[in-house]
Amino acid sequence: MTRQELIHQIFTKKTFLCVGLDTDIKKIPEHLLQEEDPIFAFNQAIIDATAPYCVAYKPNLAFYESMGVKGWISFEKTISYLNENYPDHFIIADAKRGDIGNTSAMYARTFFEEINLDALTVAPYMGEDSVTPFLQYPGKWVILLALTSNKGSHDFQLTTDQNGERLFEKVLRKSQEWGNADNMMYVVGATQGQMFEDIRKVAPDHFLLVPGIGAQGGSLEEVCKYGMTKDCGLIVNSSRAIIYADKTEKFAEVAAQEAKKVAEQMAALL
Amino acid sequence: MTRQELIHQIFTKKTFLCVGLDTDIKKIPEHLLQEEDPIFAFNQAIIDATAPYCVAYKPNLAFYESMGVKGWISFEKTISYLNENYPDHFIIADAKRGDIGNTSAMYARTFFEEINLDALTVAPYMGEDSVTPFLQYPGKWVILLALTSNKGSHDFQLTTDQNGERLFEKVLRKSQEWGNADNMMYVVGATQGQMFEDIRKVAPDHFLLVPGIGAQGGSLEEVCKYGMTKDCGLIVNSSRAIIYADKTEKFAEVAAQEAKKVAEQMAALL
Repeated sequence: MTRQELIHQIFTKKTFLCVGLDTDIKKIPEHLLQEEDPIFAFNQAIIDATAPYCVAYKPNLAFYESMGVKGWISFEKTISYLNENYPDHFIIADAKRGDIGNTSAMYARTFFEEINLDALTVAPYMGEDSVTPFLQYPGKWVILLALTSNKGSHDFQLTTDQNGERLFEKVLRKSQEWGNADNMMYVVGATQGQMFEDIRKVAPDHFLLVPGIGAQGGSLEEVCKYGMTKDCGLIVNSSRAIIYADKTEKFAEVAAQEAKKVAEQMAALL
Repeated sequence: MTRQELIHQIFTKKTFLCVGLDTDIKKIPEHLLQEEDPIFAFNQAIIDATAPYCVAYKPNLAFYESMGVKGWISFEKTISYLNENYPDHFIIADAKRGDIGNTSAMYARTFFEEINLDALTVAPYMGEDSVTPFLQYPGKWVILLALTSNKGSHDFQLTTDQNGERLFEKVLRKSQEWGNADNMMYVVGATQGQMFEDIRKVAPDHFLLVPGIGAQGGSLEEVCKYGMTKDCGLIVNSSRAIIYADKTEKFAEVAAQEAKKVAEQMAALL
């Protein structure tokens, strides 16, 4: 999906919500365990219910890999289901990959050619040749970790170098030599509040993928106040607060209500 | 596997070689494509042939994931085969994972409980809570990226902070607050030469996993000169130069010869 198509979706639907499909067999409603593929059954119901209120879905690969081969089958079925039924939704695999060039190239082939995702989260530690193989696919995106939502983000990401530049700022600046606002976004945690102002100084136009509202405690208002651009420039993710809002047979309906609530807040902020 | 067991293996077998199972369907001998699971058939033959000359195996997950569900089946079969037939070999998944705490915990469960690996490579960018979930398993190891073998390693890993500390040194120092030489190793590329001296100043006792000899051009002598400790302290990986040394029906035999050559060099250096 191109940047223009994404912006069009956001302003047409008046939402920039991404629903995180962090599907955990231990947390889904019990009645689904009778299904042949409980994880896929859950995802399918959540997707059908929440699609009007979001522009993106983000399965976190760890949850699928934790089930081994079965999990990969559920993951691939989920992506196929999205591609077939919701081609206007932006599909992100939260994978946090990044390896030497030839290995990153294999990951890129897997995720962009075979599984047909729109975007992949990538870790920046290994530098340029670990990132650029993902930038060779038109309409596909790298979402590079910049300033994450967790406590450990302070350990290295905020380290200030001899020129007064913090590591996350160097990641933002340096990576703009490799890609641009049409094929690269950044992960910035909603828990980082006013840091969005600093991010926008270095990356004024890039879309930011923002995890951390909901269960992790970040504020949507604050994110928008400091991070929103004229093109919106934000995809805000919520996982647990939406998909696990209810554990009865009404889970999908309640998830839709929760997604709708967030989408209404977003419409007011756009 | 504990540190003492690993050291025992190294000095008994007089080798600290790790064979990298970067198995690519496009690079294995053609006659194997008739097998039901060509990737597993290749791995099995390589393992049986090289086991006397190495102490560790390191499948790189990207190569398996690039084949989707089929690849995961080959990966899990390979690990089971190793666990059943070569329990004295140290098994590393080169996965370069690292995510917020609850997600890293899921990865740890997958790789250490379900798949039963000895060690996993982890990326440090997200800090403490992305690493510590992997340190909760006795006898299991985190191998944290410190100074990698690729060109892009210069982009961020060598950034010097306001106290004169480079990022890879900060990773080495800071991570020793989370784990110790009994449950943590570091990835240091063989291409980094004399930098091993600097590494040993911050991490004198930790084992280092060293990729980059062979196809990537690093020197075994230099790595040992600057990086070896009284306990050896090194696991040196070679992938392509061993497993793809020959593409005929003799591939396993030739791989064994190549592994043996490296092991003989290692015996002389120990």
